Amino acid sequence: NKGGLAVKSRDGNFTTQIGGRMQLDSAWYGEDDSAAGSTLGDGTKVRRARLYIKGTVNKDWFYKFEYDFAGTGDTRKGITDIWVGYNGFDFEGLSVKAGHFRDPFMLQDQISDNNTQFTERASIDAFTASRHIGVMGSIDRKHWTTALGVFGDKANTNGGSDDEGWGLGGRSTWMPVNEKGSLVHLGLAANYRSTRGGEVQFKQQPETNISGVDFVDTGKLLDVDSYLTLGAEVALVKNRFSGQAEYIRTQLERDTTSDLTFDGWYAQTGWFLTQDTRPYTHKGAKFKAVKPNSPFGNGGIGAWELALRYSTIDLMDGAINGGEMDNVTLGLNWFPVAGLRFSANYIKVLEVEGGAHDNEEADIMQLRGQWAF
Amino acid sequence: NKGGLAVKSRDGNFTTQIGGRMQLDSAWYGEDDSAAGSTLGDGTKVRRARLYIKGTVNKDWFYKFEYDFAGTGDTRKGITDIWVGYNGFDFEGLSVKAGHFRDPFMLQDQISDNNTQFTERASIDAFTASRHIGVMGSIDRKHWTTALGVFGDKANTNGGSDDEGWGLGGRSTWMPVNEKGSLVHLGLAANYRSTRGGEVQFKQQPETNISGVDFVDTGKLLDVDSYLTLGAEVALVKNRFSGQAEYIRTQLERDTTSDLTFDGWYAQTGWFLTQDTRPYTHKGAKFKAVKPNSPFGNGGIGAWELALRYSTIDLMDGAINGGEMDNVTLGLNWFPVAGLRFSANYIKVLEVEGGAHDNEEADIMQLRGQWAF
Amino acid sequence: NKGGLAVKSRDGNFTTQIGGRMQLDSAWYGEDDSAAGSTLGDGTKVRRARLYIKGTVNKDWFYKFEYDFAGTGDTRKGITDIWVGYNGFDFEGLSVKAGHFRDPFMLQDQISDNNTQFTERASIDAFTASRHIGVMGSIDRKHWTTALGVFGDKANTNGGSDDEGWGLGGRSTWMPVNEKGSLVHLGLAANYRSTRGGEVQFKQQPETNISGVDFVDTGKLLDVDSYLTLGAEVALVKNRFSGQAEYIRTQLERDTTSDLTFDGWYAQTGWFLTQDTRPYTHKGAKFKAVKPNSPFGNGGIGAWELALRYSTIDLMDGAINGGEMDNVTLGLNWFPVAGLRFSANYIKVLEVEGGAHDNEEADIMQLRGQWAF
Repeated sequence: NKGGLAVKSRDGNFTTQIGGRMQLDSAWYGEDDSAAGSTLGDGTKVRRARLYIKGTVNKDWFYKFEYDFAGTGDTRKGITDIWVGYNGFDFEGLSVKAGHFRDPFMLQDQISDNNTQFTERASIDAFTASRHIGVMGSIDRKHWTTALGVFGDKANTNGGSDDEGWGLGGRSTWMPVNEKGSLVHLGLAANYRSTRGGEVQFKQQPETNISGVDFVDTGKLLDVDSYLTLGAEVALVKNRFSGQAEYIRTQLERDTTSDLTFDGWYAQTGWFLTQDTRPYTHKGAKFKAVKPNSPFGNGGIGAWELALRYSTIDLMDGAINGGEMDNVTLGLNWFPVAGLRFSANYIKVLEVEGGAHDNEEADIMQLRGQWAF
Repeated sequence: NKGGLAVKSRDGNFTTQIGGRMQLDSAWYGEDDSAAGSTLGDGTKVRRARLYIKGTVNKDWFYKFEYDFAGTGDTRKGITDIWVGYNGFDFEGLSVKAGHFRDPFMLQDQISDNNTQFTERASIDAFTASRHIGVMGSIDRKHWTTALGVFGDKANTNGGSDDEGWGLGGRSTWMPVNEKGSLVHLGLAANYRSTRGGEVQFKQQPETNISGVDFVDTGKLLDVDSYLTLGAEVALVKNRFSGQAEYIRTQLERDTTSDLTFDGWYAQTGWFLTQDTRPYTHKGAKFKAVKPNSPFGNGGIGAWELALRYSTIDLMDGAINGGEMDNVTLGLNWFPVAGLRFSANYIKVLEVEGGAHDNEEADIMQLRGQWAF
Repeated sequence: NKGGLAVKSRDGNFTTQIGGRMQLDSAWYGEDDSAAGSTLGDGTKVRRARLYIKGTVNKDWFYKFEYDFAGTGDTRKGITDIWVGYNGFDFEGLSVKAGHFRDPFMLQDQISDNNTQFTERASIDAFTASRHIGVMGSIDRKHWTTALGVFGDKANTNGGSDDEGWGLGGRSTWMPVNEKGSLVHLGLAANYRSTRGGEVQFKQQPETNISGVDFVDTGKLLDVDSYLTLGAEVALVKNRFSGQAEYIRTQLERDTTSDLTFDGWYAQTGWFLTQDTRPYTHKGAKFKAVKPNSPFGNGGIGAWELALRYSTIDLMDGAINGGEMDNVTLGLNWFPVAGLRFSANYIKVLEVEGGAHDNEEADIMQLRGQWAF
């Protein structure tokens, strides 16, 4: 129980639930003033303010609609999830859904940003497959999952007079060990996208989202015909300990010039100071929300977790000088009660090589207050 | 029961309900490349993503607020309904409402887009009276209805330094036959609008809404003092069969140049392949949502309907070369369970005469997935 | 009971509530055509259309999220409240909250716009401290309250490459008399804001919000280092009678030029024609919603209130010719049932001296329909 509204019909065939997530950030930036590039501005921000309504209709049909109210302008405000699905098949764990939702790609993207170990995802999020309008079939079983989808464009894109781009994506995972407090998760994923003559850009802030300054940035890559992104992921849990690592590589095919390849990876680990463990679900093969064993109040102190991450991304290839960035992040998470989370992240940009922010080795202190219901 | 949230106080005098509608479209366009005008881009789109909250207060007062979250920018995102009403009168069927809601005009506009027979309304929707802030009184009885309202401007318009436009609209219907599975509906409506020196524009896509290209378009008509739009409507139901037709004509009065007249009409018919019928309500005198007799699952296949429509619109008069367009549409609707709908529409543009898209006889394949709760 | 949705867990430790407020305005302007400045346009408007979700988590934690759907563009649409709080302290009345909410400043700003005596706040609302992202501690007891907060920037501002501004604000009130139908309220407040090199502007419409024309306006004041705004407030209730007055003064410190001082005040009084009284709460030290003793229907006529206000604001100092405006407002409020309100305000601009609207003594008729649930 973490708040929110839920109702169920007497026979259980109809359910409706309303909930949301609220994330408030503040950040302080320390910089070497002799470095290239622009300066970072301290500040506060509503990082996400999402509400959703989801439900079950006639037992076998389910839907979700979620909207993000944060941000100014249409850049970030907008529909995140809008889909309808069916799981009334005889085949165990099979479901089909259609609508706008996340492509099945990248473990850290499958994990809700409510439940990531750090305030921001690792820098390879530059290669995110993100969300598109499409159709996906998936099978989720206790020891393995597989998902395959075909996708059109984003929810907010209109066709205009050119045809929209399209994509194809799949992800498969194997969990030889999957018990409470004990997990071995391995996964592979691929995502192909035809741009139909469009442009592509990869860029990333140093795992912060207040100042809006991208430290690595390929700029707009024109004439990209299509690109294929591959990912390999591993995750482990043993009681208080958890570990997670991913490698992503993208290859861009261009019509008139040479092809390009960019890549990156991260590895992170967490340790609960309290008697807690990072919970996992085979539905979508991902981590879910920490619920403290001993909630704050009446002698309880909630759940406390220390976490460490190393991440690297390389956006340099051929004539493209997008820069390479290596970061290390130290995180502290406090979960006083189910639904609430307070996080402090210290990010040290170890090195930026190339690009417009060459040598800008900033350090960042970032706080988040978050409640989900 | 189709999901959504509803609560009622013990005495039934207070109710609150939350619900919504989600419509996801995709379209493929075939074109004669030798035609004039721009090309149509295939694509996908969130057509509508609306949530509402409505309720009853102290038994006699009722209100509704609905917002559309779809689209980019303020063009389509925005408040649809926001009004409060009172129906505690002694006179049967009388209610008064104030706020932003649809002018009482055009049968196909009164029918919720959830419940229209085709994915898009017929091309005379170019003459829609749409919604405005106003006050309306209406009487809804089983065999007749009448509504009359006075209206200001749209919800999203500010006065600035000029006074806003205003309008007056009324609609009356007569239903000599109105039983379940058996309907004869006749109606007349008029809508007058004073523009206060503003400009007016009529335009329409070929009954599709992905590419955003208007095939007929008067352009901005300046110096329009006021315009009067008249409509005649007829609808029939006999068990599995339904029919619906409307004629609309608008006359624009201009200060310094000659007056203009545009018009159009459509006729459509539907036939359920299953033992279903199109349901109708005298409240607002319109069709409502199809609920399949035999829901999908456990041997049921839901409701299946075939539909055919011919539509024409003429935006040419005097010096205005807005074009004339004739379309025929073949539709297939599947309602697996109450609240869900999947539709396929094939639209053949029979002829475009005049305007910027002269002779652009496209054909269009359009799919919609829709769920309302 | 005024509608809306509320659920509670069996032990009462978890609650969730959904509600909103809807305000629809229309205004007619009368003007002396010989005056300077632009003309005012009559019109209608959705003044506010807000929905909120709020709740209690694990008994001691509480949160709120509210969004305003009215207006075009991001100017007015946006997050109003987004915060989480804790009140599980042993100290009576103590609570702490973090997020985006109103600075503790100005009685008429603390009172929800649902519950203000007139449709628009008095002209000193030009000095509003408004909402910011921050942390605030407050103690609310029956006979006194105090609140102190430190604030960053607005919810919708990003840091960019400059650090954001910040502020510090406090408000204390003393209520020697605080019973139902009997109140003496005295308060003092201060609000300091560092702009970090930003610009500041004070401007105000003549207590109307349809035409969007500001009658007094300092223009953009550049080079403002910081400003300190002080307020003194008093409120009284004796059965059907209520009174309220405030004085606000702001001092701007500028780096390179001389400092500036602007100020203003208002006094207002209300008289219920029916057996009703203006209710007050020590939580936030403010008036709350009128609930009619005898609701409309079954012989009841609801609550009727007459109100009168005088307000003045002076935005002239040194070289700044922002103008001075004196208004008097006559108001009539009808509360047919709890949650509903209809108001008519007649505003007479007594004098505008200086500024771009010198001598533009307009009179304004303004209606509002409002429902909150």
